[in-house]
Amino acid sequence: MYLTGQNPHGGDIYDAAPEADFSASLNPRRMPEPVRRALLASVEKCVFYPDPYCRELRAAIGKFEGVPEGSILCGAGASELLYQYAAALPEGGPALIVAPAFSEYASALKAAGRGVEYHVLTGENGFRLTGDILKRDLSRYCAVFVCSPANPTGVTVEPELIRAIAETGVRLLLDLCFLDLTGRPGRYGIPSLLAEFPNVAVLRSPTKSFAIPGARLGYMLSSDAGLLERISRRGQCWNVSVPAQMAGVAAMGCGEWLRASVKEITAERERLFAGLQELGLTVYPGEANFLLLYSDAELLTPLAQRGIAVRDCSNFVGLDRGYYRVAVRTREENDRLLAALREVLS
Amino acid sequence: MYLTGQNPHGGDIYDAAPEADFSASLNPRRMPEPVRRALLASVEKCVFYPDPYCRELRAAIGKFEGVPEGSILCGAGASELLYQYAAALPEGGPALIVAPAFSEYASALKAAGRGVEYHVLTGENGFRLTGDILKRDLSRYCAVFVCSPANPTGVTVEPELIRAIAETGVRLLLDLCFLDLTGRPGRYGIPSLLAEFPNVAVLRSPTKSFAIPGARLGYMLSSDAGLLERISRRGQCWNVSVPAQMAGVAAMGCGEWLRASVKEITAERERLFAGLQELGLTVYPGEANFLLLYSDAELLTPLAQRGIAVRDCSNFVGLDRGYYRVAVRTREENDRLLAALREVLS
Repeated sequence: MYLTGQNPHGGDIYDAAPEADFSASLNPRRMPEPVRRALLASVEKCVFYPDPYCRELRAAIGKFEGVPEGSILCGAGASELLYQYAAALPEGGPALIVAPAFSEYASALKAAGRGVEYHVLTGENGFRLTGDILKRDLSRYCAVFVCSPANPTGVTVEPELIRAIAETGVRLLLDLCFLDLTGRPGRYGIPSLLAEFPNVAVLRSPTKSFAIPGARLGYMLSSDAGLLERISRRGQCWNVSVPAQMAGVAAMGCGEWLRASVKEITAERERLFAGLQELGLTVYPGEANFLLLYSDAELLTPLAQRGIAVRDCSNFVGLDRGYYRVAVRTREENDRLLAALREVLS
Repeated sequence: MYLTGQNPHGGDIYDAAPEADFSASLNPRRMPEPVRRALLASVEKCVFYPDPYCRELRAAIGKFEGVPEGSILCGAGASELLYQYAAALPEGGPALIVAPAFSEYASALKAAGRGVEYHVLTGENGFRLTGDILKRDLSRYCAVFVCSPANPTGVTVEPELIRAIAETGVRLLLDLCFLDLTGRPGRYGIPSLLAEFPNVAVLRSPTKSFAIPGARLGYMLSSDAGLLERISRRGQCWNVSVPAQMAGVAAMGCGEWLRASVKEITAERERLFAGLQELGLTVYPGEANFLLLYSDAELLTPLAQRGIAVRDCSNFVGLDRGYYRVAVRTREENDRLLAALREVLS
């Protein structure tokens, strides 16, 4: 938890609760019914300690991902795993973060006493990661952090480029927390990527796909059993709560629901993209359940006055005043956002 | 979570579910109704990220403990806070652990790269901490870990001795996770202890008092705001889940329920103590919701065959084969334990 300072993230509904929250990037369908039922059933089970081995959950994740259970480490959200991953990295040079990126990468690395360098992508080439990163001496870094689709741009990285980075032998933290909310969740062939490259650790977040961020669940996949073991020993054994474990098991059985929701999100994203462009805003070609846009006019305050929260991205490394991230929500909510923006920009 | 190895703790109901679990030290009354209702209500709120500042929860804890909100840091169980406390300790000598003790102290310190020494208490003097500890050069240690009532002995430390240790200026991690389940929860005057000694950090665990270990909630109290800030930056900002925050707020309003349950526990502990002694077992004078006993005969397997789990304490530093911890449960369960032991020992 934070004791002091301003919350650098979106989704804080506790300070000023917005009527429509576009600042958190969650599945707009809310949680599937089997997950809701699992959370309700978990209440009576909270009288017991959670399973410190996450046995049932890891079996369910293994089936969902098509990977062996020994390559799965569960955490109380992807964020917890980032801190433990950073703390467990072997001594070495600084880490390289492809930016703009989730600010917790740097916070976790700094907490672990690691230096941080950035490979900054720019709006001119649509925030696309190119082979330029391979021109760097990657052996200098203790790890490279890459996110696809990236947060907050939504732009994805070509699978061939991911493999090329992995082939250099550098430790690669590949954050695929939003991948299942794109139209092509299978693009990286995670099982074979892991089997081929023990230097790759993949980060996953069912709480975004199934809209249960309050339950805190994430997991890391890697074929480097020694790394996962070192990471697990950095924190408590009961980190994944009973509600999170039970919700996770239920969520792993909701693949069909997820695919159906992604069809809706994709259609809405295209509609929202066109609507934002029509308003004269610069919108980047994201493939996730959110879009990055640029506006010369200040949007945060006038939208807040209309009950709408969006994510001001000026505090992201590589971004500046004028960048905003908006979640793709339901048709009605997206229409409300577009209508409000029309008012603000007219 | 654990990936490998044997679970060194009690309360693991997932491997072989016992009919009666005396291996976890929880309030036998199970959770109070307002906590159950809060957990049920939290399900719909899991679609939001948790409050990273734990605003409502810290206000409730502040009222319950009589301490300022700025001196409260919440975590996903006391265990998480142990790991972050160990990682945030300033450089210095090893830590000193008063043993026998919860093994996570040492695990957390080792994970943070700290050395560990033990101040070992013995059964001969009833595992009581005495002024002998003050004969050590405590300035050599980065911190001293003291638990009262101690786990697994249940023996408490005199308030004067706690103050004497604090007065040496050494950092004191004072684990009071079981204090509210004793008959004298106010014995240490926590608010004034904190105000007087910024080198003291108190660890608390409502999940034991209110029987919700599966929800993961604990907190640390200290008047050293800088220390709490350093600890908080060691981990993610969303560590306390929505169910844990809402259950915690409800629990802090259940003081009356807690006091009533402690009366029952105290009466049952005295009955269980007498019953165990009658069977010829050595029982130590614990004041908590569990008792440590010694038996020449092996108890784990024969009790397991009768559907009963107890905590084998042979893996505690300072203890040996033959020591067992049993929780004080309901009257019916305690009778069942005594009857089973009578069979086993006859």
